[in-house]
Amino acid sequence: MTDMQKPYPNISVPQRADIEAAAARILGRVRVTPVVQPGAGFSAGGAEVFLKLECLQHSGSFKPRGAFNRVLAETRLPDSGLIAASGGNHGAAVAYVARELGLQAEIFVPEIAGPAKIARLRDYGAKLRIGGRDYAEALAASRIRQAETGALSIHAYDEFAVVAGQGTLARELEHQCGELDSILVAVGGGGLIAGVASWYAHGPRIVAVEPQRSRALNAALALGEPCDVDVGGVAADSLGARRVGDIAFQVAHARGLTSVLVDDEAIVAAQRLLWSQLRVVAEPGGAAALAALLSGAYVPQPGERVAVIVCGANTDPGLVA
Amino acid sequence: MTDMQKPYPNISVPQRADIEAAAARILGRVRVTPVVQPGAGFSAGGAEVFLKLECLQHSGSFKPRGAFNRVLAETRLPDSGLIAASGGNHGAAVAYVARELGLQAEIFVPEIAGPAKIARLRDYGAKLRIGGRDYAEALAASRIRQAETGALSIHAYDEFAVVAGQGTLARELEHQCGELDSILVAVGGGGLIAGVASWYAHGPRIVAVEPQRSRALNAALALGEPCDVDVGGVAADSLGARRVGDIAFQVAHARGLTSVLVDDEAIVAAQRLLWSQLRVVAEPGGAAALAALLSGAYVPQPGERVAVIVCGANTDPGLVA
Repeated sequence: MTDMQKPYPNISVPQRADIEAAAARILGRVRVTPVVQPGAGFSAGGAEVFLKLECLQHSGSFKPRGAFNRVLAETRLPDSGLIAASGGNHGAAVAYVARELGLQAEIFVPEIAGPAKIARLRDYGAKLRIGGRDYAEALAASRIRQAETGALSIHAYDEFAVVAGQGTLARELEHQCGELDSILVAVGGGGLIAGVASWYAHGPRIVAVEPQRSRALNAALALGEPCDVDVGGVAADSLGARRVGDIAFQVAHARGLTSVLVDDEAIVAAQRLLWSQLRVVAEPGGAAALAALLSGAYVPQPGERVAVIVCGANTDPGLVA
Repeated sequence: MTDMQKPYPNISVPQRADIEAAAARILGRVRVTPVVQPGAGFSAGGAEVFLKLECLQHSGSFKPRGAFNRVLAETRLPDSGLIAASGGNHGAAVAYVARELGLQAEIFVPEIAGPAKIARLRDYGAKLRIGGRDYAEALAASRIRQAETGALSIHAYDEFAVVAGQGTLARELEHQCGELDSILVAVGGGGLIAGVASWYAHGPRIVAVEPQRSRALNAALALGEPCDVDVGGVAADSLGARRVGDIAFQVAHARGLTSVLVDDEAIVAAQRLLWSQLRVVAEPGGAAALAALLSGAYVPQPGERVAVIVCGANTDPGLVA
């Protein structure tokens, strides 16, 4: 089983020092997002719950951490700027980062992206290329274009500098909460959980939370290697990765992360609770980690100090009430 | 002018020790609400802006601080519980406090209150009495009823223990932000600003922000004593007090607080900015203090450390996008 213990020996995983360097690089570019202890109604079985409100990050999700780090780690940036394929949080983050750094951004958006997300990308000043029936087609078009322009392509999750940037969230969380027993993180392609688990090489239990209908990491851990999965459900627009990133799989496999699944009803219930009890708006993917706690998919010990990352808010706020 | 310098010599104003006592009394009952530095787009002229997200407090506004302190400062509570007249944030807070303390609550709600607010009161388990064309009629009905039942009536703003409870927000803010140069506070009846200014007897400039169409404190300061004003505008449901509280007037007059006005357009613009740039939902009254900063009604110095209290979120979140 040696090959399963080290499935990708050539894949480089960020270390704590890489995340420290990322934090220095992006300082002042991203918000220190607040942590709140919501109190009763949020803690199953007497756990002490801390919500990391990363949904208040610039562009509405954690994604600018990784995108800023990726761009600022480059010594020379092309005149053609940044390029990405995404109708969602990654696209918004790349467009935001480009605007803040005075760079061009060209974003390939599949036709299925909603008008609200397209309008947001436009507000950030990105050049939009709307076309392709789905993400895969938009990605293919962006690759052809990237070869023409030489723009810097930023992967949504499976890139060393992106993962190191997302890891700055965990560094911040440790500073804010001190010692934690567990951290619940929603997983799509796995960039955030890879960063969090890389920061906490020891210490809290890292719990990967995926929708039952978008379980790329869970399926990969069961199989022993990344594999394609069908994606669907209410959180598919942010967590619907067909295949988990190699870096995320490597970290999850090596660390033996806990993996749990939540159904759509639990996600919607968590979203509603965040609004009705805390007046926080989260998108379905942003509420998924909390859903694991509320639904019993993850059951903490009494007194356990559990942090839950609320990682995105890019939804129509009228839908959460 | 001696009588104008001390217009109400018999009115008792909380001191710092009263607010310390209140904080001890309500510890664990209210949330420590987070502070976030939103960064560019929120600071006029290079000020350093801190947003106190009190909109994430239980029941969606700062009001439980005062209500909890009022109730917990009583040595004996009547079996008939609590009584209040309000279709808004005060009513929600009293209903919430009653539920948390296992008390009855009877809330008199004017017919004009929206169905969303009525549903929320019902969710907290309060007995609702819907009737009266406006707040004044609901209040009159609640007073008749209070005389029958002997329930504990909690004033929305003009009561020593209520003001001391609201002051705990300032104590928390000082702990979170250290030294501040100024604090912007929205004013309706003045309970919150009286508490904040009582905590900070010296130190930061306290700026009272009122809607142009609901300016009870501003008018009272101009006249030299509290007076009735017409109320209207987008924030009237939370800031539309016809007359500022005596305690608030006393504090504002004695301290020489800065008073500024904002128009409805500025309030709506602040509400929209909070959502579009920070994914925070605020009701119009909750966004009014920020509106003063964004509209130039209050102009900070470069480098000034300005705290802005975002004090409520009880609105339909679909309206902020």
